[in-house]
Amino acid sequence: MSAELQHRRPSHLEALKRALDQGTMRQVHRHVNAMHPAEIASLLESLPPAQRELVWELVDPELEGDVLVELNEEVRAGLIREMETEELVAATEGLEVDDLAGLLRELPEAVNQQVLRSLDAQDRERLNSVLAYEEDTAGGLMNTDAVSVRPDVTLETVLRYLRMRGEVPDRTDALFVVNRSDRYLGVLHVTRLLTEDPDRTVGEVMDTEVAGIPPATPAIEVANLFQDRDLVSAAVVAPGDGRLLGRITIDDVVDVIRDEAEHSVMSMAGLDEDADMFAPVVPSARRRGVWLGINLITAFLAAWVVGRFEATIQQIVALAILMPIVASMGGVAATQTLTLIVRGLALGQVERANAKWLFTKEIAVAMLNGFAWATVVAAVAFVWFRDWRIAAVIFAAMVVNLFAAALAGVAVPLGLKRFGVDPAVAGGVIVTTVTDVIGFASLLGLGTLLLR
Amino acid sequence: MSAELQHRRPSHLEALKRALDQGTMRQVHRHVNAMHPAEIASLLESLPPAQRELVWELVDPELEGDVLVELNEEVRAGLIREMETEELVAATEGLEVDDLAGLLRELPEAVNQQVLRSLDAQDRERLNSVLAYEEDTAGGLMNTDAVSVRPDVTLETVLRYLRMRGEVPDRTDALFVVNRSDRYLGVLHVTRLLTEDPDRTVGEVMDTEVAGIPPATPAIEVANLFQDRDLVSAAVVAPGDGRLLGRITIDDVVDVIRDEAEHSVMSMAGLDEDADMFAPVVPSARRRGVWLGINLITAFLAAWVVGRFEATIQQIVALAILMPIVASMGGVAATQTLTLIVRGLALGQVERANAKWLFTKEIAVAMLNGFAWATVVAAVAFVWFRDWRIAAVIFAAMVVNLFAAALAGVAVPLGLKRFGVDPAVAGGVIVTTVTDVIGFASLLGLGTLLLR
Repeated sequence: MSAELQHRRPSHLEALKRALDQGTMRQVHRHVNAMHPAEIASLLESLPPAQRELVWELVDPELEGDVLVELNEEVRAGLIREMETEELVAATEGLEVDDLAGLLRELPEAVNQQVLRSLDAQDRERLNSVLAYEEDTAGGLMNTDAVSVRPDVTLETVLRYLRMRGEVPDRTDALFVVNRSDRYLGVLHVTRLLTEDPDRTVGEVMDTEVAGIPPATPAIEVANLFQDRDLVSAAVVAPGDGRLLGRITIDDVVDVIRDEAEHSVMSMAGLDEDADMFAPVVPSARRRGVWLGINLITAFLAAWVVGRFEATIQQIVALAILMPIVASMGGVAATQTLTLIVRGLALGQVERANAKWLFTKEIAVAMLNGFAWATVVAAVAFVWFRDWRIAAVIFAAMVVNLFAAALAGVAVPLGLKRFGVDPAVAGGVIVTTVTDVIGFASLLGLGTLLLR
Repeated sequence: MSAELQHRRPSHLEALKRALDQGTMRQVHRHVNAMHPAEIASLLESLPPAQRELVWELVDPELEGDVLVELNEEVRAGLIREMETEELVAATEGLEVDDLAGLLRELPEAVNQQVLRSLDAQDRERLNSVLAYEEDTAGGLMNTDAVSVRPDVTLETVLRYLRMRGEVPDRTDALFVVNRSDRYLGVLHVTRLLTEDPDRTVGEVMDTEVAGIPPATPAIEVANLFQDRDLVSAAVVAPGDGRLLGRITIDDVVDVIRDEAEHSVMSMAGLDEDADMFAPVVPSARRRGVWLGINLITAFLAAWVVGRFEATIQQIVALAILMPIVASMGGVAATQTLTLIVRGLALGQVERANAKWLFTKEIAVAMLNGFAWATVVAAVAFVWFRDWRIAAVIFAAMVVNLFAAALAGVAVPLGLKRFGVDPAVAGGVIVTTVTDVIGFASLLGLGTLLLR
């Protein structure tokens, strides 16, 4: 990260910490409320519990809703737990429908009822239309604030209508064209509206190429569509009658992309991307403990394999010394292949049609590196232990294990995916277990055959 | 990933593979050119070399430039190498300035000269203004197609000007307001332009809150800004006189976000996110071999530590059997802490102001899990080897190693960052080396003290 970024971001946290330490609350108040909701959210996430509560108290009530929306799940839940019902209801005021829907899913039932009562009939209907869909689908991402126009009116009429309407939602780069029964027909780009002859009709200048998105479409697929087509907004359309349901805007899609990326990184270490970095010790320990426990089972499996060769190790201690090398190299090679395949799967670039080609390539790469590094290790082992048989055994074990690493690195994620398991979560533990077991078994097994 | 996504994406690759296998070239041609440039790019990335070249030949010349822009670096370089100069010059026609600049950085000098000659004076100047900045800065991301207006004219005049102009760049959600000397003053949101009274002046309805971005700002910081403020476009402004230089649009920012995320995932496995999944075996093997070689050095270090205790292992083989457990648990715990801190650093949420708090927390978590799982391992070890001293030794070694894991997991990324090294790249190797060495040394060291 750059020096400038290091400079910009810390300033909030540093300034705040200094102000908190010196206890000039008015300064903290001013500093916090001059920030944007997303920045306040990031700051809150960076603070240990006691300071976080203190700063949260200082956030202006009209910002609270937007800040809550931007926070990560666990941090948000912690703050919500401490808030009064009235405060929560007040915070939901003025939120966009998709944000409100997301928040309501996490609020206590009593608050939900009160929020719904506080809305007028139209807003309540809009909210329910979003709540009807899963959070991570196009329907859950959409807003119901889309402005729609008819194809047979002139641009002049549209311009007059907009001026009369008096406001247009943020990030409106296009109006949606619908027929009498609200069926989605295409988009009228605002840039066309501004530049075309006002006497032309909407139907003449509309863009019919951008298809409406069905509400059940997974969020990640929506994100791919926005990226591939460089969209700013898109229509969500009922699957049966093609009725316009709402619109998705790029800001929500950016959040999906960021969350998806976080998920890959965090889940590979058995972590939850929604977790609070400053969560209390006991729940943090419990969550991470589960992953350690799963790993322990696989470690016992590896130890059990080693245990099968107790007598061999006692006779040839050199093998015990070389054990970490075979296991470690296998683990690294397998993780490399796994990471490549997992990314390819996430991008939709790996599937059955090219898996065989990838298999062959990965095995070829593994064999090249296997022979190269096995030679190095065997040479060092020979110098170290002055026994060509030990050198031969570790050479063979390394080659076998890198072969197994390539095989597992490709097959495990493909297999997990077929069974509907996220390969980013389970893949790492499985492939390193494979290389540990194969590595130890081949090293000690060959050692038993050749050396005793 | 969902069934629907599995359904949508593969269709391109599957359909193509079938068409390629059956040799109906016309069908392949139609299929490929009906796709969007980003989709064609993704398809090309999914194909092994021979098929990739075949499909590339079929891409319509007018799409070639946009497809090249969307491709990953290595794949693009491979295709460029096979293209004639004229073909390359033709491909660059009609590209946006930022995309053209990005592409020119990778084209041979001869092609560059020819492209520059083919541009008119104004376009050449624009291009040079972008080329003057590093690719991963605001200046490198910007386009020079910003539409600017004066603050003292009425909205009516702006509307007439736009209609006369006849076209506005894609993703124009705002016009930039500048004074006589082209100094950036603020933005005129298109939504305001459409809804406000046409007799009002630009100065009255413009938004002065969005500051211009200096061209040297790192791309990742631009991305954070767009995310925090939900922007669609933003002005790039000269640092001295505040002159409007160009504008950045959300589509380029989305690419930055995606690239940054890819970088974290790939570099943790010592992989290059710009690498071609289907690159030839030898270069792939060489690149990955470097990482394996680095790992081998650390593995030898661990083996050397084990070697110090040869005599102990010979007497108490149980220790060799338990070695993988201590190392593996330490590695997993350290990777968890490391991942958390690396993410915190990337988000700007971890710095000196809260590092101490995190340190304390991570050590507390490690101690809880250390004692818990050490107890389990000690119990199993006792049942296995019927020796309470072995159980005691592995208990102590596990606790020591999880403590070391927490320490290294926090200290290593913070230290690397201070020295300007990307903690996502080097962190994993270093922390697992620490836990291997500490794990083996404590297990075998304590074993030597207590058991012999």
